[in-house]
Amino acid sequence: MLHFDSDYLEGAHPAIIERLAATNFDQTPGYGVDAVCESARARIRFACQAPQAAVHFLVGGTQANAAVIDQLLRPWEGVVSADTGHINGHEAGAVEAHGRKILQIPHRNGKLDAADLRAYCAAWAEGESRDHVVAPGVAYISQPTEYGTLYSLDELEALRAACDEFGLRLFVDGARLGYALAAAGATMTLPDLARLADAFYIGGTKVGALFGEAVVFPDPQLADHFFTLMKKHGAVLAKGRMLGVQFDVLFEEDGADGCAGGTPQVPAERTRYLANGRHAIGLAQKLAAGFRAAGYELAMESPTNQQFVVMDDADVERLRQHATFEVWERRADGRLVVRFVTSWTTREEAVDELLALL
Amino acid sequence: MLHFDSDYLEGAHPAIIERLAATNFDQTPGYGVDAVCESARARIRFACQAPQAAVHFLVGGTQANAAVIDQLLRPWEGVVSADTGHINGHEAGAVEAHGRKILQIPHRNGKLDAADLRAYCAAWAEGESRDHVVAPGVAYISQPTEYGTLYSLDELEALRAACDEFGLRLFVDGARLGYALAAAGATMTLPDLARLADAFYIGGTKVGALFGEAVVFPDPQLADHFFTLMKKHGAVLAKGRMLGVQFDVLFEEDGADGCAGGTPQVPAERTRYLANGRHAIGLAQKLAAGFRAAGYELAMESPTNQQFVVMDDADVERLRQHATFEVWERRADGRLVVRFVTSWTTREEAVDELLALL
Amino acid sequence: MLHFDSDYLEGAHPAIIERLAATNFDQTPGYGVDAVCESARARIRFACQAPQAAVHFLVGGTQANAAVIDQLLRPWEGVVSADTGHINGHEAGAVEAHGRKILQIPHRNGKLDAADLRAYCAAWAEGESRDHVVAPGVAYISQPTEYGTLYSLDELEALRAACDEFGLRLFVDGARLGYALAAAGATMTLPDLARLADAFYIGGTKVGALFGEAVVFPDPQLADHFFTLMKKHGAVLAKGRMLGVQFDVLFEEDGADGCAGGTPQVPAERTRYLANGRHAIGLAQKLAAGFRAAGYELAMESPTNQQFVVMDDADVERLRQHATFEVWERRADGRLVVRFVTSWTTREEAVDELLALL
Amino acid sequence: MLHFDSDYLEGAHPAIIERLAATNFDQTPGYGVDAVCESARARIRFACQAPQAAVHFLVGGTQANAAVIDQLLRPWEGVVSADTGHINGHEAGAVEAHGRKILQIPHRNGKLDAADLRAYCAAWAEGESRDHVVAPGVAYISQPTEYGTLYSLDELEALRAACDEFGLRLFVDGARLGYALAAAGATMTLPDLARLADAFYIGGTKVGALFGEAVVFPDPQLADHFFTLMKKHGAVLAKGRMLGVQFDVLFEEDGADGCAGGTPQVPAERTRYLANGRHAIGLAQKLAAGFRAAGYELAMESPTNQQFVVMDDADVERLRQHATFEVWERRADGRLVVRFVTSWTTREEAVDELLALL
Repeated sequence: MLHFDSDYLEGAHPAIIERLAATNFDQTPGYGVDAVCESARARIRFACQAPQAAVHFLVGGTQANAAVIDQLLRPWEGVVSADTGHINGHEAGAVEAHGRKILQIPHRNGKLDAADLRAYCAAWAEGESRDHVVAPGVAYISQPTEYGTLYSLDELEALRAACDEFGLRLFVDGARLGYALAAAGATMTLPDLARLADAFYIGGTKVGALFGEAVVFPDPQLADHFFTLMKKHGAVLAKGRMLGVQFDVLFEEDGADGCAGGTPQVPAERTRYLANGRHAIGLAQKLAAGFRAAGYELAMESPTNQQFVVMDDADVERLRQHATFEVWERRADGRLVVRFVTSWTTREEAVDELLALL
Repeated sequence: MLHFDSDYLEGAHPAIIERLAATNFDQTPGYGVDAVCESARARIRFACQAPQAAVHFLVGGTQANAAVIDQLLRPWEGVVSADTGHINGHEAGAVEAHGRKILQIPHRNGKLDAADLRAYCAAWAEGESRDHVVAPGVAYISQPTEYGTLYSLDELEALRAACDEFGLRLFVDGARLGYALAAAGATMTLPDLARLADAFYIGGTKVGALFGEAVVFPDPQLADHFFTLMKKHGAVLAKGRMLGVQFDVLFEEDGADGCAGGTPQVPAERTRYLANGRHAIGLAQKLAAGFRAAGYELAMESPTNQQFVVMDDADVERLRQHATFEVWERRADGRLVVRFVTSWTTREEAVDELLALL
Repeated sequence: MLHFDSDYLEGAHPAIIERLAATNFDQTPGYGVDAVCESARARIRFACQAPQAAVHFLVGGTQANAAVIDQLLRPWEGVVSADTGHINGHEAGAVEAHGRKILQIPHRNGKLDAADLRAYCAAWAEGESRDHVVAPGVAYISQPTEYGTLYSLDELEALRAACDEFGLRLFVDGARLGYALAAAGATMTLPDLARLADAFYIGGTKVGALFGEAVVFPDPQLADHFFTLMKKHGAVLAKGRMLGVQFDVLFEEDGADGCAGGTPQVPAERTRYLANGRHAIGLAQKLAAGFRAAGYELAMESPTNQQFVVMDDADVERLRQHATFEVWERRADGRLVVRFVTSWTTREEAVDELLALL
Repeated sequence: MLHFDSDYLEGAHPAIIERLAATNFDQTPGYGVDAVCESARARIRFACQAPQAAVHFLVGGTQANAAVIDQLLRPWEGVVSADTGHINGHEAGAVEAHGRKILQIPHRNGKLDAADLRAYCAAWAEGESRDHVVAPGVAYISQPTEYGTLYSLDELEALRAACDEFGLRLFVDGARLGYALAAAGATMTLPDLARLADAFYIGGTKVGALFGEAVVFPDPQLADHFFTLMKKHGAVLAKGRMLGVQFDVLFEEDGADGCAGGTPQVPAERTRYLANGRHAIGLAQKLAAGFRAAGYELAMESPTNQQFVVMDDADVERLRQHATFEVWERRADGRLVVRFVTSWTTREEAVDELLALL
């Protein structure tokens, strides 16, 4: 069976497993104040070119989203999101669980459009009843989006400008950030992101870690007391070192000995994290090209590790004998949109075998 | 340096690391629906003699406490706890974050006394203004307690009876449960706990896992939709298998090959989990005896892995050159109470070296 | 100046003021357990033909919405609403403040369509990730809607059927219910509403009271411990009698002596509450006819006390010299939609004067 | 029957009823932005000698407490209260409903002691695990307390100093403030309170209004966006004028014509509000003297409108034939403590009749 249904099927990059094993009996204090976490933080700050950034490690994306949004909002504010935003659909109301409203704007290719955001904020600001309405306080976007699409650097700059105009903070959900940074034609770099966002996270779970998301606040003042807020959210890992180890390994130079650690200052593009991303993107592009060559239509132009292919029911049934994937939706013309996902650990042989089935 | 400051300094039992490494590239679905999690659940149900139990894996204790309490309470109810309960002090308000009130009762040796609970509930039930007051809905206890003390089987039965009399559910925080089950003179077994509690958890983080708490609802109806509530709490691990692997290994027969898995049905007392507990208890007892032999007073009689020793400031200063431990409090007589903790992985040599320093 | 901007500009029906004055020094217990509240409850049950109903009095609509929704939802559920629902826009996130998510469906003429609700629930129920998604648990509608439109009896029956099919409860926000019951061509009666809804409220604030909303749960089991939940929401009035007095007067026979109280059993259509509604509707219809006669287009066909008229900016400017009203929105064709509201206390002379200005 | 069970049995001061009736058909905008509310705010600012203060009107004490505490706390903080504080007992968890923890300190005569507060904050600040613990952010006290006792001006100054030392804000629940200001031997004035507290409220419900609490933030910056937060709490009254009318009348010169309004600048001690307080205090003192003269012990020395008398069961049974009052508690010696409450409207004849029964 070939597996293309998600990017969190396997464990972790072997260098992580190796380091966990090698350091298993080290004794360190808990809650992320150990030297390994500090090393990982230093590596991330360097890769982000954000030397002052506050960096916190959380276990998963839903808790990271809820905690950061809770941190950035003032009591009378809510978070603006595309209606397709992950926080609005598949997080079981975790943002609302902490008393926060999600202000929805219809998406465009899975993205929150800067002009739409500006129009929304202007309508709120001009409304006669604005004091009765949740104020837009944070703009939430995912990079790449839930649809596999990507914000260009220009689009991010436009969102930043809209946020500045209306006093919003910008938060970027980077659950799959590695696949955005390594995407075909990507224009945004990690330092760009650190320059433009008030907070973002570097997703580990889907890009080579067992688990873990590194939340970055480029301006540490915005992270005031964030550790206690994390605890209030049940989002502090007791043996915090386990998160430090993973991000330390991911932000080493690709190819470095996982136990030695190598040079502490590695630019983003040379890290194991980006290497993981590039691996997935290369195979995703090969997959897309193969589908096209076999006469299939792609539902949207995706430069990342999720590819959406249009198929008949019969195709789906036949492929299901040999591979796992997710049926995304049925189009108006009756045909199905099917999602194939590659990851940091997808084998090229698996892609070849899948394409051979077409 | 000798480390006796907590039971979560190191990584995991080597069998866990071994199994994580061996299965790293297995491909399984996320969120705990995989076969490894199912195997771990079956082992836990067997060890608890609770064949119908719902078993859910969470990453940490604070999130487990908040989610289970949220699950068990009805909207007008609160959770009764000893004032020394972990939820009331060191969880940054995580229970209240979900709109729930903690109803405090003064502790007795760190414990919630059944007679006190009964009196509290009776006072509420008879109050003229009871409809203006948060109703007691869940009783929360820790076994062992935050003070290292232990509820006897009789005490648990009495709490159960008090809960039944007033319609409360009983929830047991088992962050250190392995050390309660293996304690010197323990009268409560795991099947006892499953018979008496409406929900409890088997703490992994402090008893040999990298992280993880296995929440058990002996009556699965009480766990209705608990997965979605976990998600709402940000308490679902994407690669749920990582939790399954750890509890599967911990509930194997002690000494079994961590990768083979061994017989699926292992009574609690023969599991690796209990073996971990016994290791810590043996060394804690040795430590206590050593302190006594050296003329030290023990602040309380602890049958578990936390020992509280009375010392002068000068003793503390001197020992601090060689060992880490926590100063718990200053007594009325001016002397200090100091906590020494052993764990599943404490080396006997470290205990001997510490005692040699006295 | 003529005032047509809202239906809560004045105080209360004179019979209410009269009764408050006459009973001012009566001494009764607080919190709604007095005899006057009981009398008002009995009148409401009779008018609703719901002899078992639980009736609770709250001060305002936002607190009533938040408390009832909190009461009716289970922890993993959310409330479905048209995107134009009052709870979704002008209540500052009060529903989310208690940890609840609003699940939005695009409106049709301000209404939640039963087929749309059914499709939404079906999509949720069939979703592969439904356990990660907030479940639809309550359907919220306003009768009349925020747009002045009305659900017909058939439409309500269809919503009820959709709720039954998917296990939802139906909650009707009746902030302006008097104007729905008295609307031109209304097909729904108060007993119909009590038969079809799981909870609804009879709005006093906008239909002749100083303040107050009477929440009705036709099945009292759904109101279990609702008083304590109200208190938790800060929604209990200490001198509860003040609410009882107002609803007692509103549900007397129209024309009865406000201090004597009259016969205790008055059908809905003969109450002062309905008389208040009819007064406003009559003038709203006269207003609409007058605008049409003067050549104005009405933006939508409203059978209730809110009329939406299409105007040029110049018209608006000119009218503003003489009258207050709300500019609702600018249409795509550049013209403005303007709202004129009548109430239980609008004077016919004011309507005539306004029409004379056209 | 003589009623001494609470101070909210009757309606409102006749001048309030008179003004409500006289202005019933006035047309004003909603939500507290009308001229009457502005007039009431100006009167309150003058009486407080706090010309910059932000003043907001809420309907009841529970919602005022929850909203102000929510406003004053930062996300990682909680509110310190005596364990006997009203928010901790009889408000059904309204503070926790918004995610806030109450940090309890044992009371001394119903009061929060400044030294205890200082010790609590110091222990928190010095704690090794302080980042895991809810930080003290607001100190909540009631003036007078739930036990009828009073903070002296010195005690308030000491609390203020403790708050300043540890960065807390001070919030005073004044549900019965009129009875504190008029108490026998009172040393605190309304301007003192406005100088010392960061927020407080002037209780109307128990001191002559139908309902209503005027929240005062002497520094208006602390009230930033408080209106929207009130709305989020369901605590905005649509016909806000009704609150304005009541406080406008209460802060007029005592004896002024309720409809004319009189001079706009009235010092606190000359207001109708203080006159209401003095009336109740005079009768409470008479009641206390009468009980003492008849040989009864008073459980505590109360200078306010609540008197606590020690009685045998037989006394209680006999008095219950003629009067209503609340049995407060049974003392260790088996005798009962019984509460008698006077109010702004208690008749001297009723006191005389009660005393004649002894």
